[in-house]
Amino acid sequence: MTSPATAPATGTAPATATGAGEPPPHPAWLPPEAFRAIGARRVLVHGDGTLVDTVHDEVARACARHGGRVQRTVAGPVDLVLALRDSGPLPEAVPPAATAAPGPGGGSPGDEGFLLTRSDGVTVVLADAPAGLLYGLFHLVRLGEAAFTGEQPTRVHRPVLRRRMLDHWDNVAVHPVMGQVERGYAGGSIFWRDGRPRGDRHRLRAYGRLLASMGINAISVNNVNVGPTEALLLTDRLDDVAEIADLLRPYGVRVHLSVTFAAPVVLGDLSTADPLDDGVRDWWESTTRRVYARIPDFGGYVVKADSEGQPGPFSYGRDHADGANLLAGALAPHGGVVHWRAFVYDHRRDWRDRTTDRARAAYDHFAPLDGRFAENVVLQVKFGPVDFQPREPVSPVIAAMPATRLAVELQVTQEYTGQQWHACYLAPWWHEVLAFRLWGPAERSVADVLADVPGPGPHRGGDLVAVANVGDDPFWCGHPLAQANLYAFGRLAWDPRLDPVALLDEWIDLTFPASTVGDPALVRETLHAVLDDSWRTYERYTAPLGVGFMVNPAGHYGPGVDGYEYSRWGTYHFADRDGVGVDRTCATGTGFAGQYPPPWSQVYESLEQCPDELLLFFHHVPYSHVLHSGSTVIQHIYDTHFAGVEEVVAMRDRWSRLAGMIDPAVHDRVTERLAEQLRCATEWRDQVNTYFFRKSGVPDARGRRIH
Amino acid sequence: MTSPATAPATGTAPATATGAGEPPPHPAWLPPEAFRAIGARRVLVHGDGTLVDTVHDEVARACARHGGRVQRTVAGPVDLVLALRDSGPLPEAVPPAATAAPGPGGGSPGDEGFLLTRSDGVTVVLADAPAGLLYGLFHLVRLGEAAFTGEQPTRVHRPVLRRRMLDHWDNVAVHPVMGQVERGYAGGSIFWRDGRPRGDRHRLRAYGRLLASMGINAISVNNVNVGPTEALLLTDRLDDVAEIADLLRPYGVRVHLSVTFAAPVVLGDLSTADPLDDGVRDWWESTTRRVYARIPDFGGYVVKADSEGQPGPFSYGRDHADGANLLAGALAPHGGVVHWRAFVYDHRRDWRDRTTDRARAAYDHFAPLDGRFAENVVLQVKFGPVDFQPREPVSPVIAAMPATRLAVELQVTQEYTGQQWHACYLAPWWHEVLAFRLWGPAERSVADVLADVPGPGPHRGGDLVAVANVGDDPFWCGHPLAQANLYAFGRLAWDPRLDPVALLDEWIDLTFPASTVGDPALVRETLHAVLDDSWRTYERYTAPLGVGFMVNPAGHYGPGVDGYEYSRWGTYHFADRDGVGVDRTCATGTGFAGQYPPPWSQVYESLEQCPDELLLFFHHVPYSHVLHSGSTVIQHIYDTHFAGVEEVVAMRDRWSRLAGMIDPAVHDRVTERLAEQLRCATEWRDQVNTYFFRKSGVPDARGRRIH
Repeated sequence: MTSPATAPATGTAPATATGAGEPPPHPAWLPPEAFRAIGARRVLVHGDGTLVDTVHDEVARACARHGGRVQRTVAGPVDLVLALRDSGPLPEAVPPAATAAPGPGGGSPGDEGFLLTRSDGVTVVLADAPAGLLYGLFHLVRLGEAAFTGEQPTRVHRPVLRRRMLDHWDNVAVHPVMGQVERGYAGGSIFWRDGRPRGDRHRLRAYGRLLASMGINAISVNNVNVGPTEALLLTDRLDDVAEIADLLRPYGVRVHLSVTFAAPVVLGDLSTADPLDDGVRDWWESTTRRVYARIPDFGGYVVKADSEGQPGPFSYGRDHADGANLLAGALAPHGGVVHWRAFVYDHRRDWRDRTTDRARAAYDHFAPLDGRFAENVVLQVKFGPVDFQPREPVSPVIAAMPATRLAVELQVTQEYTGQQWHACYLAPWWHEVLAFRLWGPAERSVADVLADVPGPGPHRGGDLVAVANVGDDPFWCGHPLAQANLYAFGRLAWDPRLDPVALLDEWIDLTFPASTVGDPALVRETLHAVLDDSWRTYERYTAPLGVGFMVNPAGHYGPGVDGYEYSRWGTYHFADRDGVGVDRTCATGTGFAGQYPPPWSQVYESLEQCPDELLLFFHHVPYSHVLHSGSTVIQHIYDTHFAGVEEVVAMRDRWSRLAGMIDPAVHDRVTERLAEQLRCATEWRDQVNTYFFRKSGVPDARGRRIH
Repeated sequence: MTSPATAPATGTAPATATGAGEPPPHPAWLPPEAFRAIGARRVLVHGDGTLVDTVHDEVARACARHGGRVQRTVAGPVDLVLALRDSGPLPEAVPPAATAAPGPGGGSPGDEGFLLTRSDGVTVVLADAPAGLLYGLFHLVRLGEAAFTGEQPTRVHRPVLRRRMLDHWDNVAVHPVMGQVERGYAGGSIFWRDGRPRGDRHRLRAYGRLLASMGINAISVNNVNVGPTEALLLTDRLDDVAEIADLLRPYGVRVHLSVTFAAPVVLGDLSTADPLDDGVRDWWESTTRRVYARIPDFGGYVVKADSEGQPGPFSYGRDHADGANLLAGALAPHGGVVHWRAFVYDHRRDWRDRTTDRARAAYDHFAPLDGRFAENVVLQVKFGPVDFQPREPVSPVIAAMPATRLAVELQVTQEYTGQQWHACYLAPWWHEVLAFRLWGPAERSVADVLADVPGPGPHRGGDLVAVANVGDDPFWCGHPLAQANLYAFGRLAWDPRLDPVALLDEWIDLTFPASTVGDPALVRETLHAVLDDSWRTYERYTAPLGVGFMVNPAGHYGPGVDGYEYSRWGTYHFADRDGVGVDRTCATGTGFAGQYPPPWSQVYESLEQCPDELLLFFHHVPYSHVLHSGSTVIQHIYDTHFAGVEEVVAMRDRWSRLAGMIDPAVHDRVTERLAEQLRCATEWRDQVNTYFFRKSGVPDARGRRIH
């Protein structure tokens, strides 16, 4: 017998060289038509520098297509001015109001912001620095014709978060198990192939442009699990990183590198990587100096240490603050940061031991270290306490580190949410996480903490980071609709308080311009119908009530109800013939609920108050337990699983109505994926329902077929 | 999160080139000391030919070590004569009795037999053909000093089965999933490495010698799943096969080749492989002619067709008889055979459908074809209806094909029996299979059918075949004690009625000669204590009562109680809160029981008569069902799982007493493996017991700890 197949073969492009002769990748949300409003105008681009050149080139390309014209010095009347304030006297075309005190959102645009105003028929974007001008341009693209209508008061736009980052889990050498991209569902890497740089400059520039249009200003270019080949990027193969940095620099994107904590041993021939060893400190300092000599705007290091087999300071009896501060010290003189991941847990647990709890691990490891991290350490925390599930509580670490700079880590790549075979728009889920009020309803949210919104007690602000979902697939993401996740993430990183439905509208307007589709209203309505609730649909047909991890261990695609139940990974549901769920209360369970500040510690501790959607994350209950919804747990399982599949059927049927109305390649690809989603959702429904029926013996109250 | 690990890393030799400078592989059951009795004698080897040279060289080597002498012509008195009867007048040293009419086991020795007698202080082995002389030599090795004691009447020894074969599932190119050896647990292949012949002539000769000593006379040298590289062995890379044939020929072993049914398309540029197409027939005929021109004693083809993705006659609307006869026709003029595997089933089943049954598949496919296969087709049937489980009923196909030559296929490689990390002596299990009386207690057994023992109705006899368990591991098999499985298989293929305990004694005597170990009685006692019941021990701590397949799908090592329960492979146990087992009765189940002739069809159909050990293979019963043993099913599960682990503890403890008494390398390796076996058996016990406790809610009557 051969091994069981798990995920469907990825229906992506064959991994052939992408050169000049290859068709360009899909334009995603930046098709030429999206630039019509700008391209039809007389435009002045004023200022100097690489990023201003990028702005000029974008405008010039749009004007060439749509009949406008662009100039870099004043010559005749203009409709649009994009200008740097510090590059000499402003052209006359700028109305006086633009230089007056700004209205709402006032203050200086700063490094990355811009000021937008319109009067006397001229739209004006002013910035203090080139990146702001670039972001201002893409803001105009989003506004379209609305940017050229009526009078508009002066308004300053600035990113709410300073660092907006995508982490690529791309391997340079193909990993024997994880492949070219760990948890990649969109073909090969855009950076690397078979141990070498891919060398596809065209694709990387196109990617930089997409990043800039969302406001992403940092990426890491290799997997946090750093293999022998990848380790060399820091030294011998630094040129490969510099080449990427050169290509992304015109788009305001700084490059970061995942490094192994063992680098002094692996690369430097030292006998130790002890963070308190002088030789080790010297090695990191000199190595980092060489990095900055080659890449002056290098962003910094990303480190996964003492986690899932990666080396770290524990080997030397040191703690994570010692480890992170070592690298931070080497980076500080150059303005770099270290992103130190808090995803640290024992991945060799004994399933028989119900007292320990993987969910506790990050808090237990890091909360005691608050205050000990250097200024340029960013503690990067997965949004939930376990691992990117479609439903988890928000990580208690975020509220526990007031004296530490934080990054919250999301996962755009759909490892546990359908692997870009399932349509699953994740922005509503991220929005829930970001809007979660850590200390109760009237207090600051996760977004507020990252934005450094003042509140009782200190907080140092932070970054929003996500694991990327792009590859060399012609649609970038495998599933064309997964582009919406990438877009929404970038926009939430700019401002984590944005509304997911509004972001989807933005994405639809840009990706499917009204002039390019058959029935714009139907396209919009269909995309909303398919995507708006798709994350909750996914939740319905997979693991119930926050219990998580009923997924196939071989690749995390499709159901494996008991797949992790007797494993070493610490992710159990403890279903038996009487009930299901993990007791994480302080009274009788693992005590995880006590890691939250009040009121959440009490809410989660209480069987009565705990929200339904997290019930089985915090409590082990009988199948007959009645939810706030009025349903029993077992009936809820049956109902949501039948409903989830019905919703996928509806998605598929809705989508079929767009045939002939949009790009047939996109329509076909999505149609193919929806068929697979329906097959897989049906499998989830039947396996989960059968599993719980066989366990509980309780028949479905509505008499539907359970196998 | 990275993927879960499954089987332990194989603790075998690093895959470096094995040349003259490398230590020789372990001598297995042919250490120099095993030749002491022969080597101390004055020996006459009489006759000519390659195999007689082999006999002479063996004797010469033994004499050089132990003080005897060997001669090829009569010169002075001798203690031992090994002579071909047809190579001229027998030397005078042969006593007249040796040429008289033989006693028990009379008749002519034939192609592979020999005659043994002793009188007047001279031991005589006479054969009609060289292979018989070689087998006679190894018979003397087994007898040791007993061959040179007293008077012994003339007795003829002949193999009971004509073809005794090992199938190597070795890949030429490393398969991305299955590796160099599919289901290999002993390191790399002895034949192939990384797409090329391994070229280790020394090791292959040593292997040939081991094969001859057991009486194996045929091997296939590549996997039945034939990849693109392996397909070429039939044509472009035939020299690679010929090289192996040249090395094994002196040991009386013929080489067979696994071929792809699509060969005319893959290799021959034909547009079809239709077995009724004239061009296809011509291609096979001419290709086969070229094979025999290069390897005149080539054995034939092994084919896995229309199974688990391999091509076959179904693609052309033909049946398996059409397919097999096509190849048989090409082989017949040269005396070759085709082994056509009956392992054909739909491996894309729907777990929801409880009416179909993979166990039925081989019978359903092949029973209707009985009588249609050519004389030189051997239908190769796995011993059980599913797939090499530690407990299954005997395949009903064996009783259903009276007009077809059969091979029964066993699995020496321990795919489902601990992968050579667990000590699991399989000969008792094979003995049960071979002794199974197909038509009832007074009728012929599986062994009788293969041996062509006369009985009511026709039968055409057949072969015993097994999947091999050797690799480039220094101990050949990973686990040194797994050598006993290889040895016992070879001896059972010579005579399927041999007793497993006696075979183990033979193996112990040869492998651990009394003069080479510290305390021979303790060594013998310990090896029996560890191995005699080890298969039943393995059965106790794994899937209960014949239900099978509670194994980890990722590699088939260790428990995965629900691992196959919702899969496409057709191997389910259907456990729910009330009971467990597969209803294969005719009355209410899949009807598989009806594929047996009476009385077995009635025995298996009957809940009362069905043997306990197969209860859950044939019936779905409540946990409270009382077995013939008096125990309930659930208590039986608990009891056997606790007992199985206790038995492994005892095995480990017994083994530790041999420290310092045998080769320390062997002792250490077995000690290492027993520690892993105990870990894994404990995991099996706890997962199976917890699983059924959570399902049933029935506590252990003896109050032991279930997690």
